Amino acid sequence: MIPPGTKQSMNKTKIGLKGPLETPIAAGHPSMNLLLRNTFDLFANVRPCVSIEGYDTPYTDVNLVTIRENTEGEYSGIEHTIVDGVVQSIKLITEEASQRIAEYAFEYAKNNQRSSVTAVHKANIMRMSDGLFLRKCREAAEKHKDVKFTEMYLDTVCLNMVRDPTQFDVLLMPNLYGDILSDLCAGLIGGLGVTPSGNIGANGVAIFESVHGTAPDIAGKDLANPTALLLSAIMMLRHMGLHGHAQKIQTACFNTIQDKKVLTKDLGGSSKCSEFTEAICQRVQDMD
Amino acid sequence: MIPPGTKQSMNKTKIGLKGPLETPIAAGHPSMNLLLRNTFDLFANVRPCVSIEGYDTPYTDVNLVTIRENTEGEYSGIEHTIVDGVVQSIKLITEEASQRIAEYAFEYAKNNQRSSVTAVHKANIMRMSDGLFLRKCREAAEKHKDVKFTEMYLDTVCLNMVRDPTQFDVLLMPNLYGDILSDLCAGLIGGLGVTPSGNIGANGVAIFESVHGTAPDIAGKDLANPTALLLSAIMMLRHMGLHGHAQKIQTACFNTIQDKKVLTKDLGGSSKCSEFTEAICQRVQDMD
Ligand SMILES: CC(C)[C@H](C(=O)O)[C@@H](O)C(=O)O
Ligand SMILES: CC(C)[C@H](C(=O)O)[C@@H](O)C(=O)O
Repeated sequence: MIPPGTKQSMNKTKIGLKGPLETPIAAGHPSMNLLLRNTFDLFANVRPCVSIEGYDTPYTDVNLVTIRENTEGEYSGIEHTIVDGVVQSIKLITEEASQRIAEYAFEYAKNNQRSSVTAVHKANIMRMSDGLFLRKCREAAEKHKDVKFTEMYLDTVCLNMVRDPTQFDVLLMPNLYGDILSDLCAGLIGGLGVTPSGNIGANGVAIFESVHGTAPDIAGKDLANPTALLLSAIMMLRHMGLHGHAQKIQTACFNTIQDKKVLTKDLGGSSKCSEFTEAICQRVQDMD
Repeated sequence: MIPPGTKQSMNKTKIGLKGPLETPIAAGHPSMNLLLRNTFDLFANVRPCVSIEGYDTPYTDVNLVTIRENTEGEYSGIEHTIVDGVVQSIKLITEEASQRIAEYAFEYAKNNQRSSVTAVHKANIMRMSDGLFLRKCREAAEKHKDVKFTEMYLDTVCLNMVRDPTQFDVLLMPNLYGDILSDLCAGLIGGLGVTPSGNIGANGVAIFESVHGTAPDIAGKDLANPTALLLSAIMMLRHMGLHGHAQKIQTACFNTIQDKKVLTKDLGGSSKCSEFTEAICQRVQDMD
């Protein structure tokens, strides 16, 4: 269960920053990640994926954002055994949640100087559920004609994404598709070690998190790469309107990576987590 | 509906080769692709993705096969409106179908000199349905200890796939995940224009198909790239035991691509479909 202290803090500040947590496969162990998203009704999962200069990957110039419905769909948690050996999982799509996330995506595009939204779906297969989701996306598009709107099958998005990710801007989709595509896109820019994530609710409530694993093999060794958590914190600062602070830390972080002198092992260097962090802090100080 | 002639032919020869067909989004229009898979109980969808020498993509040395359960899962077609604005789609996973596809994947690995099988799932979220699928994969792995077995979350597979696809060999998964991953992998080697596909049933029944779109914009212009259909036909010949013929046509096809002299537009050339095909046929003749 969510620790009472966490709940109190969230009720007071409305804002959280969290590190990675393990989600066990075993039944009866609820996923803390999902519990947090549900408890605070964090309906939008937002993950910007932007190529980092100086950190080489097969792709350059990736600059997109995945916006994932975060409360229902395949994550409803409703499953049954019909008869022995026959199991069903229910994907739940509601008009309300679809409309809310679609509206959010278009507002996000406008507020973040992004020019197009692509709805990702399999309405050729799940005609009623993805069909409903898609309809709500189309309706939101009608309301926001200043943002370009396209629709694409999930499989086609995956194919096009690995061929040329620069064609995408804001991607809008149901829960599971977002889980998949956000990881795929993170892979394009270097992995979950460098990608931030935000879970956004109504009235300013939000939790920002690094979504990589807990890496138990390097726990306590001062080897972890803090970039994803740092970039998530920067997203948080922006969410709070502290754009100046956000920009400063971001510049310091990206410059440190570009400089290639002090990097953690996964980024291609040999520095410790604390040394990398220190190098970033130093740059922030030097800016003052 | 499936044309009677097609049914008769399938009943007689057990083997089909098909070009692309459009699947409309509108309700009430059944997908012919799905109808064919269901009618002939083609339970395994098999798509080898192998880098083609001379056809440049950001990845080289991709050499993997996606094996997708082809009859149930998210493709059950069972959907309901619960109340106005609330829709559910049912993902159906059965022990029987999971066992059958898992068994098939390990047999396939052995018969095709492949050394490892990775089960792809989201059993941390869909614990009962993906949990059942995963359990059947593990049981099959127990029976086939000579093939290495690993398990990986779908999102993690997507991330790892774009970072280093060479780590994968045979990938085994439920229906929708296969739809997504097979397209993603096709993207790595140059797209659906160059990737074959086979739908395999019991007792030798099978339909091979190119899975790209119908490209209505170039219909009748002699511009299409026939490679995916040709490679699917080669899979068909192998399935029929005609390995010599298969190998000859495959060599002719790949040599033509590598040679870069006669290529269709999408492959980077300026030749017509008929010229490209002619060049391949010429090479086959030259081998005799
Ligand atoms: C840990 C897991 C529950 C989670 C998910 O599936 O949503 C993770 O993959 C993510 O993307 O945040
Ligand atoms: C056309 C469509 C029904 C089909 C699917 O979703 O399976 C296609 O994407 C495929 O992969 O063969």
